[in-house]
Amino acid sequence: MSQLLKHIHSPKELRLLNQKELPQLAKELRNFIINIVATKEGHLGASLGVVELTIALHYVFNTPDDQLIWDVGHQAYGHKILTGRKEIFDTNRQLGGISGFPKRDESIYDAFGVGHASTSISAALGMAIASQLKGDINKQHIAVIGDASIAGGMAFEGLNHAGVTNANVLIILNDNAIGIDPSVGALKQYLTNVKKGTQRKNNIIEALNIDYSGPIDGHDIDKVISELKRLKTVKGPKFLHIITTKGKGLKQAEENQVKYHAPGKFDATTGDIISKTPSEFTKYQDVFGLTILELAKQNKNIVGITPAMPTGSSLKHMMDDMPERAFDVGIAEQHAVTLAAGMATQGLIPFCNIYSTFLQRAYDQIIHDVALQKLPVIFCLDRAGLVGEDGPTHHGVFDISYLRCIPNLIIFAPRNEMELRNIMYTAQHGLELPIAIRYPRGMGVTVDWKQPFEKIEIGKGVQLKKGNKVAVLSIGTIAKNVNEAIANCKQPAYIAHYDIRFIKPLDETLLHSIFKTFETIITVEDNSINGGFGSAILEFTATHNYKNSIKLLGIPDVFIEHGSVNELQKSIGLDVESLSTVFSGLV
Amino acid sequence: MSQLLKHIHSPKELRLLNQKELPQLAKELRNFIINIVATKEGHLGASLGVVELTIALHYVFNTPDDQLIWDVGHQAYGHKILTGRKEIFDTNRQLGGISGFPKRDESIYDAFGVGHASTSISAALGMAIASQLKGDINKQHIAVIGDASIAGGMAFEGLNHAGVTNANVLIILNDNAIGIDPSVGALKQYLTNVKKGTQRKNNIIEALNIDYSGPIDGHDIDKVISELKRLKTVKGPKFLHIITTKGKGLKQAEENQVKYHAPGKFDATTGDIISKTPSEFTKYQDVFGLTILELAKQNKNIVGITPAMPTGSSLKHMMDDMPERAFDVGIAEQHAVTLAAGMATQGLIPFCNIYSTFLQRAYDQIIHDVALQKLPVIFCLDRAGLVGEDGPTHHGVFDISYLRCIPNLIIFAPRNEMELRNIMYTAQHGLELPIAIRYPRGMGVTVDWKQPFEKIEIGKGVQLKKGNKVAVLSIGTIAKNVNEAIANCKQPAYIAHYDIRFIKPLDETLLHSIFKTFETIITVEDNSINGGFGSAILEFTATHNYKNSIKLLGIPDVFIEHGSVNELQKSIGLDVESLSTVFSGLV
Repeated sequence: MSQLLKHIHSPKELRLLNQKELPQLAKELRNFIINIVATKEGHLGASLGVVELTIALHYVFNTPDDQLIWDVGHQAYGHKILTGRKEIFDTNRQLGGISGFPKRDESIYDAFGVGHASTSISAALGMAIASQLKGDINKQHIAVIGDASIAGGMAFEGLNHAGVTNANVLIILNDNAIGIDPSVGALKQYLTNVKKGTQRKNNIIEALNIDYSGPIDGHDIDKVISELKRLKTVKGPKFLHIITTKGKGLKQAEENQVKYHAPGKFDATTGDIISKTPSEFTKYQDVFGLTILELAKQNKNIVGITPAMPTGSSLKHMMDDMPERAFDVGIAEQHAVTLAAGMATQGLIPFCNIYSTFLQRAYDQIIHDVALQKLPVIFCLDRAGLVGEDGPTHHGVFDISYLRCIPNLIIFAPRNEMELRNIMYTAQHGLELPIAIRYPRGMGVTVDWKQPFEKIEIGKGVQLKKGNKVAVLSIGTIAKNVNEAIANCKQPAYIAHYDIRFIKPLDETLLHSIFKTFETIITVEDNSINGGFGSAILEFTATHNYKNSIKLLGIPDVFIEHGSVNELQKSIGLDVESLSTVFSGLV
Repeated sequence: MSQLLKHIHSPKELRLLNQKELPQLAKELRNFIINIVATKEGHLGASLGVVELTIALHYVFNTPDDQLIWDVGHQAYGHKILTGRKEIFDTNRQLGGISGFPKRDESIYDAFGVGHASTSISAALGMAIASQLKGDINKQHIAVIGDASIAGGMAFEGLNHAGVTNANVLIILNDNAIGIDPSVGALKQYLTNVKKGTQRKNNIIEALNIDYSGPIDGHDIDKVISELKRLKTVKGPKFLHIITTKGKGLKQAEENQVKYHAPGKFDATTGDIISKTPSEFTKYQDVFGLTILELAKQNKNIVGITPAMPTGSSLKHMMDDMPERAFDVGIAEQHAVTLAAGMATQGLIPFCNIYSTFLQRAYDQIIHDVALQKLPVIFCLDRAGLVGEDGPTHHGVFDISYLRCIPNLIIFAPRNEMELRNIMYTAQHGLELPIAIRYPRGMGVTVDWKQPFEKIEIGKGVQLKKGNKVAVLSIGTIAKNVNEAIANCKQPAYIAHYDIRFIKPLDETLLHSIFKTFETIITVEDNSINGGFGSAILEFTATHNYKNSIKLLGIPDVFIEHGSVNELQKSIGLDVESLSTVFSGLV
């Protein structure tokens, strides 16, 4: 079946093929992706949609000398397979295997590491200007960006700069009308009108002084190649608008694009998703999604906001039920936060749900628009801590550090589903300051989590287990590992366990009692040790001149690679066994 | 002279005037602003440019019920004067006086606090959607945004969302072709073409599904009023493009718009700037600007990048001398950082100069595009620490905390001009990791600062003064206060002083020797205590189980208001006298 693909180990070999053979190669490449992702899991739909584009780009351009950047990178599987990683593609996203995203230190063909959206134009322009300064006037720099990503403000900033340069940058808009969820916003509507031919008058790209061409069918490989060949001779910034279908070539993936973005295991022949053994537990995401809906039914001031993650965050529950009060604003974290701030000035209670790693995009807005004005926005930081297979671009391991210095901000980490529910209940119940609630990706720990709401006292920690020698202070769901680790110790009775719950404000009463009782304190968190929860505890000790021994456990000062959460925890000593060893050594 | 203005204490009284009287009021308001700013200093040009618009807005709309947001806020002096703050306007920007920016807790007419650019559309849209949900369909929500600010990515995100709502939001583009420095970018070129009538085909705003009108003369008060009255009846999102002249009404301010943005003291009658007594010292900004130029002449790979602050950062020196290698990318911090990352992949050495407070806008890009890829971008964080009169929106007091958790990043704070020069020299000399160099606004401390370059060993602190009882560890230019405070102590000989220089990596060898020698350690920084430099020292002590007494001095966990740097330092105990008292109490 794989007559052509099996001979291709680099784009050089691809370029030896006759153009007529390329549709066959596209077929083989598509099947290769489908067969591996069916069993190894990963991001499917985006890569299927750009098979022809991927082949055409490497066929026409002289990669890696010409530089190719895939925005976000979900769509780069075909690129990886054609650029020397075919044999190891089955290690995709696994510990020690290749990354799910383009990554500079993985391949010379990965011109720029990606993961977060909207970066490609800026990076490509930087490279193009560098080539220009070096006098390398024929080198090409190509950014492939989707219609969801190009709506991010950063992409606009890049276009705005590109339009006043004469740098050799080619921006390819891969327009499939969907990101992970369907694209939203006026630009999406504009692009739809362009496709329909009803938007003829106003061309945004031309207005920004960039040579526009398209839209063309991105699955017509001859057409794409001829356009790319033509654009290769055009100097300066240029823009090609291509239309593709996400999931192209697999019927179910085309028909159910959200589900097949990353479908998990499926039958490569029929396309049917292989259903997982149903868990008795519920994802934290659904606890959030169902709880906000439940609260919104009782409190008419509640609104929900997500920047392009309705499915991932489970805000979808509320969007389906009360669409006028739940907003998907697209890939626009900055806007999401300040929109929430504006709403809060009018007495609305916005739950702004943003993945921990993406909230980095709206850091200034949290400080300047929310905290400084003491606006009671409720930030729900989904996917805090280690996220697993998505790796270093997606781990949410900095939020405690970057939020802890912001005045007026309350920071809370629930250790289980009830705590998440109850803090959401508490926050919408007249809280006069903003709050950040961080919780992880994945399954909860309680079958019967839907219990009556209880208010949580702000700044109050709890003792989970008594002990008489060592006190372990944890934050958030890592409490589960701590709990099991203590149970596995030889002398569990020696070890007390506290869930401090609020990183800010700290429960100083509880801390005084802990520091007066225990000589040795251990802090455990799934955030960077630098400036994190443990660091807050150290500041408390300095203020009050305690001399206890304190050991900080958490994420070390390196970027954590991809792998399963368990594997990663093990690699940095946050798994049950490692914790147990540390605890045992101290009693 | 002030026949009309003297009777106006709120917009209600303004609305009682006959429209024919408004040009006279405009004249009086302009004179009022000129007279006070001439002696009290502040931002002049922007407010002079919108005098007619300000009067028209409050005349037509029912403020404060209709909500008015001034993007950035430099242009809001007229607004403040007309909304009850005329009598206290001479306290502008002074400690305890009114803020130089709109501020919610200062006046009910300040619908949203501002300071950083590009936030107004998102905030106004949030308010408008809130009104819609409440069924308040006649309420108006107005964002006034300049042509420099609207180019920021966040503003595009707001427009993109606004265009798919039917919320009552009016966006007024105050187009004067200048921010603090002249506007740049393709959008600016587009707007220029619109004004010239050469851009008729493509309308970006209409393409985003927003009702566009204009451009009109923003100094023709009748025309502005009639347009605002018309737009008041238009439902949904709408956009008015007005053309104004920054500095309007003061000849010199119109002719030299950059200088008269915030001219300092000037003669209110002639407009001539009253020159300050020349200082024997040089601004850190000029040390940066002259040094990068000097280095760039020796090293052809050096490039300079500023997001819209060529004058403020003094990158202007390089831009004037080698324009092809120094880039003003406009208000686009995110793009600036990733552009630098793209350049660094090609072997260029980008100095990316961003004010500490504005780098908050590009936090994700530092992590995701620079540090994760170990790209040796050199970040120059201007205006780190307390900035003085600009107040809480502009103090650069969080950067150590938010940067310290980022792996692979070196963080350095020079204590004087030579240290700034030498770290710049060191950084461009083959450094293989990114570095952040933080330095303050204002004058240096050394007359003869232009000394031969010396390489600084990465991660190496220095002892500035010997002592035998207490060790003071400082970071950056606050060393000057520490130095004087020690000299003022009764027994200065007891106190040792170290400049640790590198917040990351810490000089562990030096720290071990300090912790073994001194029982009491004091850390001093002009960054938040939460997660800051002192916190890094505490993490070191926890790792190595030191039990010394440690006192952390720095910015407390509150937003610091406006005032002179000296006054603010005094208010939080970082002035010479307060430090001296603390030091004396410990020996």
